[in-house]
Amino acid sequence: MKEQDEKYLLDSIRAIKDFPKEGIIFRDITTLLNNKEAFTFLMDHLVEKYQNTKLDYIVGIESRGFIFGAALSARLKLPFVPIRKPGKLPSKCLQESYSLEYGSDTIEIHTDAFNNQKANVLLIDDLIATGGTALAAVKLIEKLNAKCIEACFLIELKDLDGAKELAQLTSVYSILKV
Amino acid sequence: MKEQDEKYLLDSIRAIKDFPKEGIIFRDITTLLNNKEAFTFLMDHLVEKYQNTKLDYIVGIESRGFIFGAALSARLKLPFVPIRKPGKLPSKCLQESYSLEYGSDTIEIHTDAFNNQKANVLLIDDLIATGGTALAAVKLIEKLNAKCIEACFLIELKDLDGAKELAQLTSVYSILKV
Repeated sequence: MKEQDEKYLLDSIRAIKDFPKEGIIFRDITTLLNNKEAFTFLMDHLVEKYQNTKLDYIVGIESRGFIFGAALSARLKLPFVPIRKPGKLPSKCLQESYSLEYGSDTIEIHTDAFNNQKANVLLIDDLIATGGTALAAVKLIEKLNAKCIEACFLIELKDLDGAKELAQLTSVYSILKV
Repeated sequence: MKEQDEKYLLDSIRAIKDFPKEGIIFRDITTLLNNKEAFTFLMDHLVEKYQNTKLDYIVGIESRGFIFGAALSARLKLPFVPIRKPGKLPSKCLQESYSLEYGSDTIEIHTDAFNNQKANVLLIDDLIATGGTALAAVKLIEKLNAKCIEACFLIELKDLDGAKELAQLTSVYSILKV
């Protein structure tokens, strides 16, 4: 993406200081989503980037990853698979846990999410920080014998090295690096 | 929608007994989402239905409403507005509470979600049961001086009368009634 296009998208994202806690600058993507031109520009960019990639499924991580993942699924006419927090998916699941600053968290995927195909998968989330969630998501995808072709993020927090660690498992594409 | 098309979509949704608790048949829409033909068929139907409606925004309710709402936004090239559980939206919010069987719940919308326009809005969620969440969502939309043109659901649980109550506030379209 051209530098001026990156700037256009970044300017459409509201920066909120000290949310959810002091010292953090929260990137509020709702101002991109409710901006018709910016949201369509973003989706056009992703369609152009992935329309000739051999993909079978798009996977989105709850909750903001659902928005970007389902939007791209619909544009590319590909099926969509959700990765969710524990207890939300009603059928048989695989779980993967990962460490947080304090404690740990877990995400789940349905074991039949890819209909038992050796599927090519694009993983989407809004943001990669330390990369714990994304790493766990790629592990879930690969445990189901699918291949994570790429992990795509709207925003990468480049000081946190999550994308570098993830790049050992899969190709990583971050649209904006801040 | 034709009866045979309704049956096709309904058959793509997995029914799970006793989830999340005994006596409830849970409608698992993940088997529709990861079915390329069924998901595309559903989205094509919604695009055809709404492409000539004068809409400014699509609003989806966390979390499954994000999937269907964002998917339709992307297909119609309309902006998307999320309604979320408390504490998730980082800027100034309006809140609306509603009663549950035991206790109550609250949802939020950003006060500048519609950029202060008198906007025409389509509300989307996966399912309407008692209608508490959807009623609260329509109230939030109208408090922001927007007009809820229609509330659209993939599934209506017709024994629970939520859609009837909601129809006093806005037009209601349920694709499948079970």
